Amino acid sequence: MELKIALLPGDGIGPEVTEQAVKCLHAVEEAFNHHFVFTEAHAGAIAIDHTGDPLPEATLQVCKESKVVLFGAIGDPKYDNDPSAKVRPEQGLLKLRKELGLFTNIRPLKVYPSLVDRSPLRPEKVAGCDFTIYRELTGGIYFGKKTLSDDGTVASDLCEYSEKEIGRIAHMAFKAAKARNKKLTLIDKANVLETSRLWRKVVTRIGESYPEVALDFLFVDNAAMQMILNPKQFDVILTENMFGDIISDEASVIGGSIGLLASASVGDGHAMFEPIHGSFPEGAGKNIANPIASILSASMLLDHVGLAEEAATVRAAVDKAIEKNVVTPDLNPDGNYGTDQVGDFIAHSI
Amino acid sequence: MELKIALLPGDGIGPEVTEQAVKCLHAVEEAFNHHFVFTEAHAGAIAIDHTGDPLPEATLQVCKESKVVLFGAIGDPKYDNDPSAKVRPEQGLLKLRKELGLFTNIRPLKVYPSLVDRSPLRPEKVAGCDFTIYRELTGGIYFGKKTLSDDGTVASDLCEYSEKEIGRIAHMAFKAAKARNKKLTLIDKANVLETSRLWRKVVTRIGESYPEVALDFLFVDNAAMQMILNPKQFDVILTENMFGDIISDEASVIGGSIGLLASASVGDGHAMFEPIHGSFPEGAGKNIANPIASILSASMLLDHVGLAEEAATVRAAVDKAIEKNVVTPDLNPDGNYGTDQVGDFIAHSI
Ligand SMILES: CC(C)[C@H](C(=O)O)[C@@H](O)C(=O)O
Ligand SMILES: CC(C)[C@H](C(=O)O)[C@@H](O)C(=O)O
Repeated sequence: MELKIALLPGDGIGPEVTEQAVKCLHAVEEAFNHHFVFTEAHAGAIAIDHTGDPLPEATLQVCKESKVVLFGAIGDPKYDNDPSAKVRPEQGLLKLRKELGLFTNIRPLKVYPSLVDRSPLRPEKVAGCDFTIYRELTGGIYFGKKTLSDDGTVASDLCEYSEKEIGRIAHMAFKAAKARNKKLTLIDKANVLETSRLWRKVVTRIGESYPEVALDFLFVDNAAMQMILNPKQFDVILTENMFGDIISDEASVIGGSIGLLASASVGDGHAMFEPIHGSFPEGAGKNIANPIASILSASMLLDHVGLAEEAATVRAAVDKAIEKNVVTPDLNPDGNYGTDQVGDFIAHSI
Repeated sequence: MELKIALLPGDGIGPEVTEQAVKCLHAVEEAFNHHFVFTEAHAGAIAIDHTGDPLPEATLQVCKESKVVLFGAIGDPKYDNDPSAKVRPEQGLLKLRKELGLFTNIRPLKVYPSLVDRSPLRPEKVAGCDFTIYRELTGGIYFGKKTLSDDGTVASDLCEYSEKEIGRIAHMAFKAAKARNKKLTLIDKANVLETSRLWRKVVTRIGESYPEVALDFLFVDNAAMQMILNPKQFDVILTENMFGDIISDEASVIGGSIGLLASASVGDGHAMFEPIHGSFPEGAGKNIANPIASILSASMLLDHVGLAEEAATVRAAVDKAIEKNVVTPDLNPDGNYGTDQVGDFIAHSI
C-alpha cells in the first residue's frame, strides 16, 4: 500500500516520541512491503517561533493532502500563564481539528496487568479495566461564540450543539459498543443544560437502531466519581467536548501509565493520531520520554487505513517490550532504557 | 442565642438524616442554653408532589425569613431520565441558590485517618489530605441563557461571568487560604474559554492584596488528574460553577466516605448547609443512611452564626462516634447501628 502520512511532531517531547513511532512505521513498511510517504510540518509553539502562527497555512495544506496525520504534542510554558496572549499553541490544535473536521476523539483505555501496581487506585479497582471514550471534538463550548465586553469586565462562552453534530458521533459510538461489550454510557448534565437534554434525546433515539446495545446515562459529576469508584462498569463512553476533556483525562491516570495511551481523532475524510500525554517540556531532550503512546497511536493509524494485521504486529511488539521491561524510567525507574532504545527494541520486534 | 433555622429535608434519605442533625441541634440548645426555632418546608420532588412546584413560594418565604437553612437532599429517579420533563426537582435547588444569593459553595475535605483504608485510592495518596473547595454557585453556564430552536434540533447554553461575580468569591477563597496553608489553586480552562481568562485576570489581580497566599493555576483537565495523582498538593481550590460541580464530586470520593462530607453555600445575607451526598432513593426508609454529613452540616451552620464552641462540640461528638465505630453500614458493614442510633449516640455525646 502507498500511504501519505503528515507528521506534526510539535513541541517538547513531541519530536522525540514521534521519531520512534516513525521508526516503527518504517519497520512495518519493510516487513509488509508498504510504502509510506512522510511529510513533516510545524505546529504549536515551534510554529509560532518560526512563523508567528501556531498552524501555518503550509502545515494545514500538508495535512489536507494526507489522509492521516501523526501528531506529537504541543504546548510550551511560556504561553501558559499569559491569558492575554493573542497567539497560543493550543489554537493551532483546535484549528486543525476544525479544519480537518475531526469530530470524534477516540481514547481506548486498557489497564495492562503487569502495570496494575502503578495505578494510584487500589489494584482491585482497576485490574481488568477496558473501555473506550468517544469525545465530541469540534463543537460545544470550545468553538461557540466568545465575547468580552469593551471594558473587559464581562466575558462569555457559548455552548451550542445540533442534532447533526450529536448524531454522527453517536452512530460511531454505538457501532463501537456493538463490536465490544454492548454497553454505551452517555455522560451529560441533562438536569441543568439544554444542550445535554438535546444529547440525551438524540442519543436515545439513535439507540433504537442499536437494540443490542444497552444505553445508560450518567450526570458528569457522578461520572467523575464513578471513574474512581468503579471504572470497570464502563464499556463505551460517549460525551460532549468539554466533559470529554475532563473525564478522559481523569480516566487516563487510573491505569497508572499515561505514557501508554494513544488516541485517534477522526472525521469523514481525515484522521489524526496522537499520544494523549502533553508536551512535557521539562522532559524534552533528555531521552526519557515514553515513546509507547506515540507508537500505539501509529498502530491506531494503521488500523484506520485498514492495515489490521500490521497494527496488531505493532501492538504485539509493544506488549513484548512491556513484558520484558524494556521501558522508559516512568515505568521502570531502575531500568536503563531511553526513548531511543525502547523505540529501537519495538521497531526490531516488528 | 435565639436563631431561626429553616429546615428543608427534601427527598429520599434527606428527611432521615436531617432528623438526626436536628436532634444534635436540640442537644446543643440544651447544653449551651440557646433557643433555635425550626420551620420546616417542602422542596424538591416532595414539593412537586404536593404543589407542582419544586420550590413553592411558601418555602422560599420561610428561607428568606431565616438567616440559615438546613437542607437534606433532593432528587427522585422518576424525574431523572425524562429530559423533556418541564418540572424537575433540581430546579428548586437552583432557584433557591439564586434567590438567596448563595454565590459560594464551600466543601471542606479532610480524610479521617481511621478511614484511609476505605479510600479507592492507595492509602499513601490520601492520608493527610486536607483541603477546601470554593465553587461559584450562582453564575456560569448553570444560569446563562438557554435556547432550543423551534424545530428542536439546535440547543445552546451560555456561560457568562462578570468581574464582580468572580471578585466576591475570590476574596472569600483568599481569606480562607490565608487562614489555612496559604495556597490557592484556581481551576479553569484559560487555554480555551474567554470566561476562564477573565477568572485568571481577576483572581491574579485580587491575589496582589493577599501577598502571603501563593496562587497557582490548573487547567481543569489536568486538575481532574491531579485530584487522583496527588490530592495532598491542594489547600484551597477556587473554581467556577460547572468545573466545581465535577471536581468537587471527584474529590468527594477520594476520602472513601462521602457520607461524612458537609457543605455550606453562603452569600451576603443567607446561608444554607447540606450534606454533599444526594437523595439516595434506594436507601430511603431503611434506617441505613449515614447521618454524619448532615450533622456536620449543622456544625458548619453553628460556626457560621458565630457559635464556634458549639460547632467544635458537635465535631468532637462525631469524631467520638467514628472512633468508637458507632457508624452506619456504609462505614462498618458488620456493625449494628442504624441512622437513628448513630444520631442518638452523637446527640448524647454533645
Ligand atoms: C490543549 C487543549 C486545547 C486540548 C483540549 O482541551 O482539547 C487538550 O487538553 C486535549 O484534550 O487534547
Ligand atoms: C442537583 C444538581 C443541579 C446540583 C448541581 O449540579 O449543582 C448538584 O449536583 C450539586 O452539586 O449540588
